[in-house]
Amino acid sequence: MSDKRTAVFVVLDGLGDRPLKELGGKPPLDAAKTPTFDKLATEGQSALMNVIGPGITPGSDTAHLALFGYDPIAEYPGRGPLEAFGAGLETKPGDVAFRSNFATVDDNMVVLDRRAGRTFTPEEHAELQAALDGIEIDDVKVQFIATVEHRGALILKGEGLYAEISDVDPHETGKKILTVRALKPEAEKTAKIVNELIRVAHERMRGLETNKERAKKGLPLANAILLRGPGRHSDVPPLPERYGIKAAVIAGGALYLGCAKYVGMEHIPVEGQTGTIDTNFDNIAMKTIETIKADYNYVFVHIKAPDNASHDGNAKEKILAIERTDTMVGTILDEVGDDVVIAIAGDHTTPVSVREHACDPVPIMFWSNFIRPDSVKRFSEKDAAKGALHTIKGIDVMPILLGYAGYIEKFGA
Amino acid sequence: MSDKRTAVFVVLDGLGDRPLKELGGKPPLDAAKTPTFDKLATEGQSALMNVIGPGITPGSDTAHLALFGYDPIAEYPGRGPLEAFGAGLETKPGDVAFRSNFATVDDNMVVLDRRAGRTFTPEEHAELQAALDGIEIDDVKVQFIATVEHRGALILKGEGLYAEISDVDPHETGKKILTVRALKPEAEKTAKIVNELIRVAHERMRGLETNKERAKKGLPLANAILLRGPGRHSDVPPLPERYGIKAAVIAGGALYLGCAKYVGMEHIPVEGQTGTIDTNFDNIAMKTIETIKADYNYVFVHIKAPDNASHDGNAKEKILAIERTDTMVGTILDEVGDDVVIAIAGDHTTPVSVREHACDPVPIMFWSNFIRPDSVKRFSEKDAAKGALHTIKGIDVMPILLGYAGYIEKFGA
Repeated sequence: MSDKRTAVFVVLDGLGDRPLKELGGKPPLDAAKTPTFDKLATEGQSALMNVIGPGITPGSDTAHLALFGYDPIAEYPGRGPLEAFGAGLETKPGDVAFRSNFATVDDNMVVLDRRAGRTFTPEEHAELQAALDGIEIDDVKVQFIATVEHRGALILKGEGLYAEISDVDPHETGKKILTVRALKPEAEKTAKIVNELIRVAHERMRGLETNKERAKKGLPLANAILLRGPGRHSDVPPLPERYGIKAAVIAGGALYLGCAKYVGMEHIPVEGQTGTIDTNFDNIAMKTIETIKADYNYVFVHIKAPDNASHDGNAKEKILAIERTDTMVGTILDEVGDDVVIAIAGDHTTPVSVREHACDPVPIMFWSNFIRPDSVKRFSEKDAAKGALHTIKGIDVMPILLGYAGYIEKFGA
Repeated sequence: MSDKRTAVFVVLDGLGDRPLKELGGKPPLDAAKTPTFDKLATEGQSALMNVIGPGITPGSDTAHLALFGYDPIAEYPGRGPLEAFGAGLETKPGDVAFRSNFATVDDNMVVLDRRAGRTFTPEEHAELQAALDGIEIDDVKVQFIATVEHRGALILKGEGLYAEISDVDPHETGKKILTVRALKPEAEKTAKIVNELIRVAHERMRGLETNKERAKKGLPLANAILLRGPGRHSDVPPLPERYGIKAAVIAGGALYLGCAKYVGMEHIPVEGQTGTIDTNFDNIAMKTIETIKADYNYVFVHIKAPDNASHDGNAKEKILAIERTDTMVGTILDEVGDDVVIAIAGDHTTPVSVREHACDPVPIMFWSNFIRPDSVKRFSEKDAAKGALHTIKGIDVMPILLGYAGYIEKFGA
């Protein structure tokens, strides 16, 4: 295909749902007024999608990796590197990353508070971060960033590091921080480094001004770090390498940003983009149009609001989030419709009735001004089941989008 | 998902069929009156299912392994262990099991009758079984059970046993029992043990009272065993381990019981449950309700009658078997419908016109009181093809059932 388009992928987080009595037995997507989505369904191709596989309830991280074309099982790096990217750090292949908590321990490393009181001032964050970032143990360098409240992300950079180590966190107060063991022989070095790091971090943290002040105020000291969710950045080729594309992410939530950046997307910040119903849909539309007009080949737009409404059991707000996204997509396509191939989908089902992720497949549709329409006329769970694409998997989305957009070369002669 | 249900799986054996002239061009399921099934189809989700794969005609054993969530190719242990479980013995990982025939040989081990006349009294069975069960050869112990007519099951228990050996049975009379060879180096020990076992069994059997009596009556002597279908119980994790569930089987036929017990289900016996149209459907319904109300997380109910009717070429009886199962499922759901996720399916197609298993996909549907309905209104081959689940594989059934029932944890965060 010579005519290259920009591939646009809009994810309404937690879009899939189940019948709701309060909506006359319809799921929210079916009850919402979605003129743009219905036009796209009429002119495009629909499917139901098992994002991971039949019967499997996707997590947000595994779902997005699959939707970006990565095997969510074989290529899943664990939470650490995704959180690090989400926090603004950047792992490279071979790095091992963790989620981190500031914690309070006594002189024997017995955990007194797993979150060190939870609240910190920006100044405290800055001093704690400075104390931890840049630690060196043998040939391994530590990167650390404080994020929200007691949370942070920590990266180990060095040769021969692996994530298969036992827990640091005893997960209970009144217990000592655990001595880490290697869970496979290759991880011996990492276990040794982590044990030493926990000790060095404690030494550095205990004397900080922050803790003198917290002691005066009767606040729990931040004198230790608890590391969780170790993950190794494996040798997965990022999107530019795998598909030869320049890819952008427009998302508010840290984890979605983290997943997108892990696979090589560039973050395009949008003023007022949040994870809630109050996110600035107009700004997202404008920035998406701008990005499509720039030299990006793929743009991922993430709308978190439907999932938040689902977790709150709020059907009305879920409908509102869907309707606002419908309008937003209309604005985008009015401007650049002739230049794109677009897919609209959920990343998983979060039934308002359940308030948690569930295993039900989600609706998806593909549209461009040249695509072969099927007989579906609306965007809903029930209608998508009748689409020409039948049932697809999350990992199929990227090839279909990029295939239509002209970025996948003919296979064979 | 916090709300856990009991997963119920009802298999109508050989349910799938082809159009029949005598039924106005309909297959039996389509011609049957099935008010319960049609209600479930209307409120649930349908699919067609390739139990093994497209174009592959399933055996009963491989079909059920797939339906229980096991890879029917990679995790198939061969017939031996399944028959052993069906006969009431129990293999453990590492055991090698066989189907066994009593046979008649002459002094040179030339086979004169591959079934030793076929009929045996209970007393003969008991004496033969006692002579064979408990044989020890080197460090290998033999378990043996006589089952029906000349048939039995035999297990070898010991270290380093493998099933890759050549045939014992010459499959023709007038030929000597074959000397077994290892088909891979690891199986040398097993080949040696089996050759010695055939000799020892002959020694023990020839002098039995049973054979003195049979000689007097002019009946063929049961003075040898022919072993067939070697299989090794591999290290497949049983259902309780794989999914953390307590699973029950309600089935009459030995092979279905064998498959179910091989994967770790507990047998719930039902008075009057047989493999025929005269099976006691009411008792099966009552026992199924009782099992669902007990602490089982998964209940497999097997109805053999439709397959028997198909093998007999009896469309009327197949319809009757389907209609009685429909009523039975109605009784079950009237009582415990709010507590279950249920799937109804065939395990393979047995066209009345063919009288043997065939490769055609089979209808399946999933129902619970929370599931998203598709647009299908009836349970039939033709209608199932329009279901929201499109085409699934046998191995998908367990994840879908257990996913909806709440026994599969979210994958990722």
